[in-house]
Amino acid sequence: MRKLALIHGPNLNFLGIRNKEVYGQDTFESINQEIGKEALEYNFDLEIFQSNHEGEIIDFLQSCYGRVDGIIINPGAFTHYSYAIRDAIESISIPTIEVHLSNINNREEFRKTSFIAPVCIGQICGFGKYSYILGIKALDDYLQNIKHS
Amino acid sequence: MRKLALIHGPNLNFLGIRNKEVYGQDTFESINQEIGKEALEYNFDLEIFQSNHEGEIIDFLQSCYGRVDGIIINPGAFTHYSYAIRDAIESISIPTIEVHLSNINNREEFRKTSFIAPVCIGQICGFGKYSYILGIKALDDYLQNIKHS
Amino acid sequence: MRKLALIHGPNLNFLGIRNKEVYGQDTFESINQEIGKEALEYNFDLEIFQSNHEGEIIDFLQSCYGRVDGIIINPGAFTHYSYAIRDAIESISIPTIEVHLSNINNREEFRKTSFIAPVCIGQICGFGKYSYILGIKALDDYLQNIKHS
Amino acid sequence: MRKLALIHGPNLNFLGIRNKEVYGQDTFESINQEIGKEALEYNFDLEIFQSNHEGEIIDFLQSCYGRVDGIIINPGAFTHYSYAIRDAIESISIPTIEVHLSNINNREEFRKTSFIAPVCIGQICGFGKYSYILGIKALDDYLQNIKHS
Amino acid sequence: MRKLALIHGPNLNFLGIRNKEVYGQDTFESINQEIGKEALEYNFDLEIFQSNHEGEIIDFLQSCYGRVDGIIINPGAFTHYSYAIRDAIESISIPTIEVHLSNINNREEFRKTSFIAPVCIGQICGFGKYSYILGIKALDDYLQNIKHS
Amino acid sequence: MRKLALIHGPNLNFLGIRNKEVYGQDTFESINQEIGKEALEYNFDLEIFQSNHEGEIIDFLQSCYGRVDGIIINPGAFTHYSYAIRDAIESISIPTIEVHLSNINNREEFRKTSFIAPVCIGQICGFGKYSYILGIKALDDYLQNIKHS
Amino acid sequence: MRKLALIHGPNLNFLGIRNKEVYGQDTFESINQEIGKEALEYNFDLEIFQSNHEGEIIDFLQSCYGRVDGIIINPGAFTHYSYAIRDAIESISIPTIEVHLSNINNREEFRKTSFIAPVCIGQICGFGKYSYILGIKALDDYLQNIKHS
Amino acid sequence: MRKLALIHGPNLNFLGIRNKEVYGQDTFESINQEIGKEALEYNFDLEIFQSNHEGEIIDFLQSCYGRVDGIIINPGAFTHYSYAIRDAIESISIPTIEVHLSNINNREEFRKTSFIAPVCIGQICGFGKYSYILGIKALDDYLQNIKHS
Amino acid sequence: MRKLALIHGPNLNFLGIRNKEVYGQDTFESINQEIGKEALEYNFDLEIFQSNHEGEIIDFLQSCYGRVDGIIINPGAFTHYSYAIRDAIESISIPTIEVHLSNINNREEFRKTSFIAPVCIGQICGFGKYSYILGIKALDDYLQNIKHS
Amino acid sequence: MRKLALIHGPNLNFLGIRNKEVYGQDTFESINQEIGKEALEYNFDLEIFQSNHEGEIIDFLQSCYGRVDGIIINPGAFTHYSYAIRDAIESISIPTIEVHLSNINNREEFRKTSFIAPVCIGQICGFGKYSYILGIKALDDYLQNIKHS
Amino acid sequence: MRKLALIHGPNLNFLGIRNKEVYGQDTFESINQEIGKEALEYNFDLEIFQSNHEGEIIDFLQSCYGRVDGIIINPGAFTHYSYAIRDAIESISIPTIEVHLSNINNREEFRKTSFIAPVCIGQICGFGKYSYILGIKALDDYLQNIKHS
Amino acid sequence: MRKLALIHGPNLNFLGIRNKEVYGQDTFESINQEIGKEALEYNFDLEIFQSNHEGEIIDFLQSCYGRVDGIIINPGAFTHYSYAIRDAIESISIPTIEVHLSNINNREEFRKTSFIAPVCIGQICGFGKYSYILGIKALDDYLQNIKHS
Repeated sequence: MRKLALIHGPNLNFLGIRNKEVYGQDTFESINQEIGKEALEYNFDLEIFQSNHEGEIIDFLQSCYGRVDGIIINPGAFTHYSYAIRDAIESISIPTIEVHLSNINNREEFRKTSFIAPVCIGQICGFGKYSYILGIKALDDYLQNIKHS
Repeated sequence: MRKLALIHGPNLNFLGIRNKEVYGQDTFESINQEIGKEALEYNFDLEIFQSNHEGEIIDFLQSCYGRVDGIIINPGAFTHYSYAIRDAIESISIPTIEVHLSNINNREEFRKTSFIAPVCIGQICGFGKYSYILGIKALDDYLQNIKHS
Repeated sequence: MRKLALIHGPNLNFLGIRNKEVYGQDTFESINQEIGKEALEYNFDLEIFQSNHEGEIIDFLQSCYGRVDGIIINPGAFTHYSYAIRDAIESISIPTIEVHLSNINNREEFRKTSFIAPVCIGQICGFGKYSYILGIKALDDYLQNIKHS
Repeated sequence: MRKLALIHGPNLNFLGIRNKEVYGQDTFESINQEIGKEALEYNFDLEIFQSNHEGEIIDFLQSCYGRVDGIIINPGAFTHYSYAIRDAIESISIPTIEVHLSNINNREEFRKTSFIAPVCIGQICGFGKYSYILGIKALDDYLQNIKHS
Repeated sequence: MRKLALIHGPNLNFLGIRNKEVYGQDTFESINQEIGKEALEYNFDLEIFQSNHEGEIIDFLQSCYGRVDGIIINPGAFTHYSYAIRDAIESISIPTIEVHLSNINNREEFRKTSFIAPVCIGQICGFGKYSYILGIKALDDYLQNIKHS
Repeated sequence: MRKLALIHGPNLNFLGIRNKEVYGQDTFESINQEIGKEALEYNFDLEIFQSNHEGEIIDFLQSCYGRVDGIIINPGAFTHYSYAIRDAIESISIPTIEVHLSNINNREEFRKTSFIAPVCIGQICGFGKYSYILGIKALDDYLQNIKHS
Repeated sequence: MRKLALIHGPNLNFLGIRNKEVYGQDTFESINQEIGKEALEYNFDLEIFQSNHEGEIIDFLQSCYGRVDGIIINPGAFTHYSYAIRDAIESISIPTIEVHLSNINNREEFRKTSFIAPVCIGQICGFGKYSYILGIKALDDYLQNIKHS
Repeated sequence: MRKLALIHGPNLNFLGIRNKEVYGQDTFESINQEIGKEALEYNFDLEIFQSNHEGEIIDFLQSCYGRVDGIIINPGAFTHYSYAIRDAIESISIPTIEVHLSNINNREEFRKTSFIAPVCIGQICGFGKYSYILGIKALDDYLQNIKHS
Repeated sequence: MRKLALIHGPNLNFLGIRNKEVYGQDTFESINQEIGKEALEYNFDLEIFQSNHEGEIIDFLQSCYGRVDGIIINPGAFTHYSYAIRDAIESISIPTIEVHLSNINNREEFRKTSFIAPVCIGQICGFGKYSYILGIKALDDYLQNIKHS
Repeated sequence: MRKLALIHGPNLNFLGIRNKEVYGQDTFESINQEIGKEALEYNFDLEIFQSNHEGEIIDFLQSCYGRVDGIIINPGAFTHYSYAIRDAIESISIPTIEVHLSNINNREEFRKTSFIAPVCIGQICGFGKYSYILGIKALDDYLQNIKHS
Repeated sequence: MRKLALIHGPNLNFLGIRNKEVYGQDTFESINQEIGKEALEYNFDLEIFQSNHEGEIIDFLQSCYGRVDGIIINPGAFTHYSYAIRDAIESISIPTIEVHLSNINNREEFRKTSFIAPVCIGQICGFGKYSYILGIKALDDYLQNIKHS
Repeated sequence: MRKLALIHGPNLNFLGIRNKEVYGQDTFESINQEIGKEALEYNFDLEIFQSNHEGEIIDFLQSCYGRVDGIIINPGAFTHYSYAIRDAIESISIPTIEVHLSNINNREEFRKTSFIAPVCIGQICGFGKYSYILGIKALDDYLQNIKHS
């Protein structure tokens, strides 16, 4: 069974509380449950990690090295300034996909630029919790293509 | 059966010829076939449109009005300057998803900004032809949520 | 009788459908009818042209050469990037007035700059369909001044 | 009879002296006379105010509150830096139209941006003294639409 | 008894009329009365000055020289472009505090930068009329510290 | 009794050591004591939190949810780049006031912009430890107005 | 015999009419005739294409694929914004040379940057119709070097 | 005898009080006296005008029209934003020289750009009160050259 | 014996894994050993600290206060955004040297600016692990000069 | 026989050594020989000048005055900052053509802007040594047109 | 007798040839003669130096050290980029005045910024050759004030 | 014995005279002597070159080709604009290290960017004359690594 790490960045544990008009009604727990089901269906052993600490996210990313097949990350606000997370993703060389609940292209100006995406395979944003589900599907497709090539 | 319009922007008909190291080996036809199968599975009646002409894309977008349930668009280079396509998408008020084959965040600087994405539901990039497949899944999820809400 | 060409840029044929809170309730046809009446009153033989294609607008502008006394143009989104339309207006040397339904100064940042206006006589914006009526009056005044000078 | 205030900003009292190649031959007095005639025709009781003092223009704008039906303003150079006049227009909530004699889009770079226009109904520029005449017509149309809606 | 000058910049005399959703319901007079009471409590002889004229504000600032112990100023829109008021405050060397009714950090982009604050002791914004009350307290504290040092 | 959380950002525990000419002679402890007294007077149950860790500040902000009536925060250097703290404040929806010891408007260029202030009620800077005292008074006033409205 | 495609962008068919002081007296036809003669001399089978439509130029560029040995293009105003033409040139991988009649370096600021030139072999500008003649010579030299290397 | 107008902008009447380390010890009166003597020597009938009001300076500039041979102006802080004074100088067409006491090139960044100087003959800065003396000499030279040419 | 603190920023513990073409083959441990030997030779009691957490680095910097003679820091990605680490270094007033393994001047644009270096004695970059060795030598020289002056 | 000056800027004497992948294999001498032959064919008396010194290039440009019919210059790196060479070319009023071996549009960002080209007839870049050959042909054409006009 | 060095930057030896409409009809020699006379009158032993070489100007500036009482420099185009000349002037600590023949404020954008002026006493521009004469007078005044203070 | 070239840029020969508070008390000669000793110790045959002429530095760099093993360069002010020196270093392909006496990161804004460093091995700044000593050590280490690899 393949290993999938799911990383939620700062404030995502407050989903269902924060900005409901932007992020929708689902709570953090219910979203994680749905992701868990999807992961299982795609034969992924899912490990979920959330932190408001940039350093803990980097520590966790490093802990994935040699042990995890793919990463889905919603870096939250770190998307827009954490060069350190960017370097961490680059250094561990594990296929990583950036996802966002909201469409970061139609909010504040500063949310339009991702410093993380350039070191990921791709980016998915705007589909609420379904962004994560799409991330799993994308990762599965990516890993199968690699195996077969 | 729901109606889905798929729009390919300029130069995408040259897939498999242009920049293989960036866009992969698949040809335009083979990609469209795979998208067609996926659409069918999701119960979408698929209509594929490609043009190198900004104006034709706007004409087609307008022709979708009152007749199409959702749109998936890969605007190609128009992503980065066509305010006219942006206005067209906004005016027809049909759920639209922007997709890209490559990860536009790690190429030339000008490819990092999308003038189209702010009027779409969301954006998917970096997964090759699978970006389109994800777009179909995302659209299906979006339309079901609307119906049930 | 003097010849007047009226050019509507992209998406203006969708008036009455698109962004009613911005552009008002009038349809494209009803607006053209009112403009037609006004033109007649000012003794202008009116020719109306709409296109979503930048190239067709340029073709039409060139077709005006030596045959039309004045032009009123609402370039729509092309206002903000079409250097080619700008060059076309400059090359045919026919008095041209830029009009906009909405006040382009209080919308998105990119709508504040017109690349077309510098080669026109002047610019009128913010008065809904009446912007066109004002354009006809302005053109009439301009042409009379030229004749008398 | 409706009340119309016409505000001329700095240096406009020197019309006919300053930059004739840009602003034309008409003097300040002759322009005001023509505007006066037009206002009468549109059933406006016209009050003309000119000042080189930003503060006096704000004082006058405030004096219009509750007493004037519409305002036509040529803010002159204040167009490009007076946030205070902008705030004054916004605070009195009287329909206001910005006009300019010259086409501010084809002169120095700094003249292309208006800090006043975003709080006005619309903007008219480039038609010499006829810009004012168009302003009266536009205001009349605007006020009639409001009354009838 | 210490002397305190309170300066209201342009349009502040229209409080209670202008932008109630931004500045609240209080009128200019009622606010001044409350400030007057607070000043008395802090043993300040209060002199209130309002002007829409940048020049009059500079004149008044100069008139404070050698006669006033502290200044509270709400420069209104002048905050964002009046280098002349900045120079005046710097030249008279009287402790000055900048206050704003609204939180200037979450409005238009241009309101985020103050050209006046760098020559003041400090800045207080966002607390409606209470910004002024805080200004009096801050000035009292500042003057006492100076006396005791 | 109302609950008030006071958050000190990075390096503020070094007050009295760092940059005395900028921040004054008071130590971190003596300042907290004075704030404590003032809080008591305003009937606030004060909880003081200091951390050099962005993540811990976010954790603490989240811990305030549903338990604290108001927050005073001096984000220190995080003021100028922590979008994550900004999101945290926005998500917990507790009235928050940003304070600074020094006048951030007359120091290095980068200190002039606050990414936190736009989600706060207001901002107070430049009055040394008295900035905190003013923050308590401002919060008290704000909470009373809400209660009475 | 080698095949050479010559592409004229928008408004170039109006040569001899437009901006004579910038582009000279020659008409579009006479220029094409001279280019035809030169092409013959260099043993090129010349195909001339002009369009005001960005899309048609892209279509034509694609039609050159596998059939044309070299391209000379004067993209006119598209030089300064058509990322789509840039992508087309890149995708067909045919040696392409950008030419301009005027010296684009000493006209309006926006004409100084070419978005097309980075995917061409080189750029020639400022020599009137002779820019095209030089383009033919340059292409001939380039193709011979390739053949011999 | 030729007529010379000397205009001092805002805060210059506070010379000898303000920023002595920048502007020197001389008072406004003593400087004017010295300028008066110099003017006499050069056969200029000197008229001195100082105002903190931009509008009064414009009024005065207009009053010079047809009556004054040359102008020396120290626009103070207006140098850096008053497009209205710039327009006034341009409109009256009287030879004008901009002077500054301090070297505006080695102070704050915003003081390095003059919006007034482009419509003056020249600029002199950095020589304290002697900048004015040099201005008189420069004006005398300029006027003699005109007379003799 | 003098006390030297060596601080490694985020991801440096992954040396030998990450980006070998940029940072070389040495592992984190082997580099630290070499630094240890060099420190001993220069009579420094070396304490090595690595963290991926900005806050822990600040905590450690504060712990150096009054106990450490000099600091060598490789802030990793924090170099480019951590104003908080900058403030920490400034507040503890211990001679600090910034080092980098790679030449930060020839990598991505954002790596060219250091927000930390302005509060350090100097900066050394580009020499791989030898950058640290040079840092020790530089610190030794600096401390000897201070002692002798 | 007409006189042609060819100026090579800094580092061009190192051709064949420096950046062969960018500039090709030809040596400086062999290129000059080829240029010499071409010049002869076009009836130009060729004078070749190379210098790494901006000042010597200006001296040489001045020495051309009244003695040379045309200039071909490859300013090397001076292209991007030498306003002094620009002024020299402008002052001597001899037809000058700027050439570059490489396509300066697809290298580092700073190489895209030429400060020299605006005072030249035109610019040719990207064709290796053949850029010079084209320069000779272009100059010949230009001089013949002048003679005949 | 005091020693005065006059430095002319690049291309100034071509005065009377270059851009007569900008710089006037006087030749380099005649201007130097007039300056010589003026210098004598002010009791200055004048040494004139002209070079097109930045390095020679720096060499000459250094040669002035300990031997010259004041410097007048027209840096020509070096004004806008030579940080090396700026450093040279700063290092020799001799009172220096920057002069320009033309008004650098109303020419190309790049000519508006002087990198040299911040290390000079002041700047004089726009008065043709009389700028130099004013420079001598200004230097004389400056040196006398120093002597008497 | 290995050959080492040391290049001092403009104004460095004035060390001990210029800006002592920035560059320290040592003279140019004494610094060179110390560097000489260090070079000997590292078995380098040292050749010292200083020039205020950019061109001479380029000439000297070229003269190093094929004859010198390593270069240490302090480009002085040329660091910030000489693309020509950058090209020279790149073309000769000799290991080069950039050094600065002062910490260029905490001086004027323009000194923060080096146009030379991207083509060097690394950069050392802020350690006074010891920056050169470190440069020698760094070069020695670099050359040994190359030899052994």
